[in-house]
Amino acid sequence: MIVVPCRYMGPKDKDYAVAFALPTDWDGVKLLTRPASFRKSEHMEFPAGNFGDAETFIIFDDVFVPNDRIFLNGNGDPRQTAYAGFLALMFAHYHRHSYTGCKPAITEVIASAAALVAEYNGIEKTSHVQDKLSHLIGTAELVFAAGESSAKHSEKAPSGTQVPDEILTNAGRRLAGEMIYEEYKVLADLSGGLIATLPYEGSFFSEDVGELAMKYMKRNPRVKPENVLRCFRGIEAFAVSEIAGLLQVAGLHGGGSPSMETITMMMRYDLEKLKNISKYLFGIKSKLKRYERPTVTPRKQLEKFRKAMKGKKLEK
Amino acid sequence: MIVVPCRYMGPKDKDYAVAFALPTDWDGVKLLTRPASFRKSEHMEFPAGNFGDAETFIIFDDVFVPNDRIFLNGNGDPRQTAYAGFLALMFAHYHRHSYTGCKPAITEVIASAAALVAEYNGIEKTSHVQDKLSHLIGTAELVFAAGESSAKHSEKAPSGTQVPDEILTNAGRRLAGEMIYEEYKVLADLSGGLIATLPYEGSFFSEDVGELAMKYMKRNPRVKPENVLRCFRGIEAFAVSEIAGLLQVAGLHGGGSPSMETITMMMRYDLEKLKNISKYLFGIKSKLKRYERPTVTPRKQLEKFRKAMKGKKLEK
Amino acid sequence: MIVVPCRYMGPKDKDYAVAFALPTDWDGVKLLTRPASFRKSEHMEFPAGNFGDAETFIIFDDVFVPNDRIFLNGNGDPRQTAYAGFLALMFAHYHRHSYTGCKPAITEVIASAAALVAEYNGIEKTSHVQDKLSHLIGTAELVFAAGESSAKHSEKAPSGTQVPDEILTNAGRRLAGEMIYEEYKVLADLSGGLIATLPYEGSFFSEDVGELAMKYMKRNPRVKPENVLRCFRGIEAFAVSEIAGLLQVAGLHGGGSPSMETITMMMRYDLEKLKNISKYLFGIKSKLKRYERPTVTPRKQLEKFRKAMKGKKLEK
Amino acid sequence: MIVVPCRYMGPKDKDYAVAFALPTDWDGVKLLTRPASFRKSEHMEFPAGNFGDAETFIIFDDVFVPNDRIFLNGNGDPRQTAYAGFLALMFAHYHRHSYTGCKPAITEVIASAAALVAEYNGIEKTSHVQDKLSHLIGTAELVFAAGESSAKHSEKAPSGTQVPDEILTNAGRRLAGEMIYEEYKVLADLSGGLIATLPYEGSFFSEDVGELAMKYMKRNPRVKPENVLRCFRGIEAFAVSEIAGLLQVAGLHGGGSPSMETITMMMRYDLEKLKNISKYLFGIKSKLKRYERPTVTPRKQLEKFRKAMKGKKLEK
Repeated sequence: MIVVPCRYMGPKDKDYAVAFALPTDWDGVKLLTRPASFRKSEHMEFPAGNFGDAETFIIFDDVFVPNDRIFLNGNGDPRQTAYAGFLALMFAHYHRHSYTGCKPAITEVIASAAALVAEYNGIEKTSHVQDKLSHLIGTAELVFAAGESSAKHSEKAPSGTQVPDEILTNAGRRLAGEMIYEEYKVLADLSGGLIATLPYEGSFFSEDVGELAMKYMKRNPRVKPENVLRCFRGIEAFAVSEIAGLLQVAGLHGGGSPSMETITMMMRYDLEKLKNISKYLFGIKSKLKRYERPTVTPRKQLEKFRKAMKGKKLEK
Repeated sequence: MIVVPCRYMGPKDKDYAVAFALPTDWDGVKLLTRPASFRKSEHMEFPAGNFGDAETFIIFDDVFVPNDRIFLNGNGDPRQTAYAGFLALMFAHYHRHSYTGCKPAITEVIASAAALVAEYNGIEKTSHVQDKLSHLIGTAELVFAAGESSAKHSEKAPSGTQVPDEILTNAGRRLAGEMIYEEYKVLADLSGGLIATLPYEGSFFSEDVGELAMKYMKRNPRVKPENVLRCFRGIEAFAVSEIAGLLQVAGLHGGGSPSMETITMMMRYDLEKLKNISKYLFGIKSKLKRYERPTVTPRKQLEKFRKAMKGKKLEK
Repeated sequence: MIVVPCRYMGPKDKDYAVAFALPTDWDGVKLLTRPASFRKSEHMEFPAGNFGDAETFIIFDDVFVPNDRIFLNGNGDPRQTAYAGFLALMFAHYHRHSYTGCKPAITEVIASAAALVAEYNGIEKTSHVQDKLSHLIGTAELVFAAGESSAKHSEKAPSGTQVPDEILTNAGRRLAGEMIYEEYKVLADLSGGLIATLPYEGSFFSEDVGELAMKYMKRNPRVKPENVLRCFRGIEAFAVSEIAGLLQVAGLHGGGSPSMETITMMMRYDLEKLKNISKYLFGIKSKLKRYERPTVTPRKQLEKFRKAMKGKKLEK
Repeated sequence: MIVVPCRYMGPKDKDYAVAFALPTDWDGVKLLTRPASFRKSEHMEFPAGNFGDAETFIIFDDVFVPNDRIFLNGNGDPRQTAYAGFLALMFAHYHRHSYTGCKPAITEVIASAAALVAEYNGIEKTSHVQDKLSHLIGTAELVFAAGESSAKHSEKAPSGTQVPDEILTNAGRRLAGEMIYEEYKVLADLSGGLIATLPYEGSFFSEDVGELAMKYMKRNPRVKPENVLRCFRGIEAFAVSEIAGLLQVAGLHGGGSPSMETITMMMRYDLEKLKNISKYLFGIKSKLKRYERPTVTPRKQLEKFRKAMKGKKLEK
């Protein structure tokens, strides 16, 4: 468990300006864990049922952290407090960048299910369905591209790691976050209401009504009713379930909400330089130098910050 | 249980062109019911836990329907088949109109929860939150207004009932359907990730960690932690649960999907008359008569239909 | 010319807290007028060319206003300053309500041109075109419905006039403002690039290339090339012209921008009462009284305001 | 002038399945050109006034093309007709890819003007303005990233040139096209109505009212009224003018409309392979091979095509 501050901190916050690493079974650490998994199937092979997610609310109840596990300690050295925000943003940054890789995969799972159910419902070739599928795919591609470009425009940190470009990372992760509910909407749209009115799985395997129920799952004559059931049953598990809500909320907020990405983007983009374009075009400034994207990289920011802290003996 | 056809039907469909009323425990009627309710609370008063929904997949397994319970019988009189689509649309129409009354209430519940959690999170007064809340409210108002106007522009049917205006009803219900996922997005946006990472209710009442867990629910000092828990617990039940998925799917598809409302609107709106406006303005037609909204009301459609059927002894 | 304050005003603003009526040619009134009209046609009948718009930047250069033309005078009686905001909002309110009547007509003109060009381009029946047309129509209907419902829920003012409901009016006018650029997008989408690359009208009537140019306007064989030209020429005049920009800006800002409508809605909607719904459902409040839309009508607001001003001898 | 076919062609279209290069003043080529430029200024320095655009409607009136200028000739060799669609798509492809470079620059000009006018209007720091600016920037970044990634995932053509990835290129160019009207909306939103009601430039320099008019351009006390005028005058030229309409239409349709990009994407994305993800997860297929983005590259398509044409002596 690696713990970092979660926001910018001022002098009063120094006790919270800490970063450290601990094993999760450390004394005093309480994990209030909430596991969630896709509804399992009792009657059919259902690999999705093997996947799940566990979110944890962690309480530190008078926990001792040895010095050699501490990275930042505003309590021990109040001047370190100033770095809290920097750590918070850097954690978020890598998390957001990882999103540009993992989130397109979730979108592709949704697109895959939407394409499959569209085929089973016999509407795959209609123009509105093609349009909706291509927009799911397009979102995955754009988020992925933002991640790839932000890696290309990365900057080497003093530690030797590469820091991806923040504007591109945040623009990509924000798009992912803004689209997750729309993606679920498309999936439900192409599925139809049946994903919410589907009888319990047991009904399809009961002696009494199983055969009849299965009969009415038939759609496309080239698709076995069992597979139609698997498809609707699978989408039900993805879209009408506790874990669906979790995926929606995680898709929106994971790594930072769209609002946070907007704030980060605006901190890193120099609007004054951007304005120079129109100041020149409109005759307010007489010259426009060769224009470059006016970003403030973490290194530039850190240097500026270090300069400001100089002589204050920040590190022990 | 009142049964009506679900689409337009042709001569081959005559056996399905039936409408009738039966008690739900009638011989041969099989109800595959799927009840869903809001997560109940074991430790706190939680009135929402008293509400739920039951969707049913109904199978008619060789059911006998007495003549006096039949409204339409394409099997007995094939010419009645032509009315199947009309009945399907009229059922959908009243369902959609009722949506313009009930759906704004769901939006208001969502808006209410979003406003409450925004207060508890201390962000209620920020402009983006006000904007999001006002758009939830605006959607409820617009859908309601569409329903009210469609009632005002209703037309008396031969039976004496009023038939609401179809263009307005469908425009209103479609907006409701198109916005439901966006509404959930706003609710999750203002709530933050906690609605998906909230420890199980029991944790807050356990001897071991209950007091500590409750302590960390505190936000706004003027709000008791118990009430903060109730709020997040309540939103979790509304947004991260099986019934949340059901409400989303029902909000999208109930009474007919947005795509169906689009089709109905375009069947009832006379585009040729609409084009006359620009034909006049652009000099293609020399005159434009006093312009009225070019709608085709059900009565006009029925009269036209009856005329076409004349002499065919449609009714027994 | 009826002049009213444009915003809430405080004691320092008293010299600007005035309302009065003057003829536009009054001494010292300077009108900097900017007329705009649809491109006229030299070669074809083009009724749209008869329409236009004139926006005026009005300067009051030391203007004398006789007492009998004054409605509000913060300068003469500083306590009247408090009414400035009320007048500003009431002017905006009626303007916005009138928008719910006139703006749907503009949308219908756009929808009409979009439907006509879709026919000429041979794409009218495709599902994406039907979807786009039905959304133009839907927007017009929803804005109209909001206006009609706001009239139905109006309240009689002490003066005897009816004040439309502010929540509904603002929700309707805001939707209109938010959609205007989207409406132009649909029109351009269905037209294709030709509306921006169309040769000058003269080319089609020149001896040199007129016949050839006209030949290549042919699309649908049932439509005369002259009418195709009229259609594209007309849409060009509506969408690729100075007045197009004006219609877009006026559609967005006329009567108040969407942001202003959001602010007004939130001033008139009692969020505390709205929160009671979820407070009840979540167990925070034990009872929920019969729920009514929690609006603050102008009359309620004025009464409250009058009470606060009581004994301050506001009117002379 | 390089001429290529504009769509897929069948045997009947062979006379149009031609590609060639000609000087623009070649005998029989008629250029119906429509130049447009930003409104020039008579009183102020206004570099934007130096820019413009010329769209041309080109008619080939019995034009002779020498053999050494011909690349494709379906008329001379009907089998070449089959390549017409390929050429059309490849032209569009490079055009669309170039858009991912040039279009972000237009968005940045719009963002620059929006940021400048927001500063002059004193609203730059409000959260809704920051949000709108960051979305303009985000769109530019995402389109650029799509172009950069599509270059990275390019494929060497037999000729030695690199062919950018079509899915990424089309996803990027489509986003640009879908957002152009929204971008203009944001610019108008932050500018306010003044860009459409601004007096003619001459008014500000007239003896009669110039001084007065300029006085009322003052907003932010730190900004000279002349610069405020330059800013509004400049935005007026960009947003309320014939060229504004042209930029909107070109932004939507240039290189192919969003609908065309959707079609291209769906031609190049193998939905059957995409469906395998959910077929595996839902238990319909028992295995999922290592998953790769299921794109059909131009080379794969060409090879398939060549194989199909084999032995048909396509090339002379």
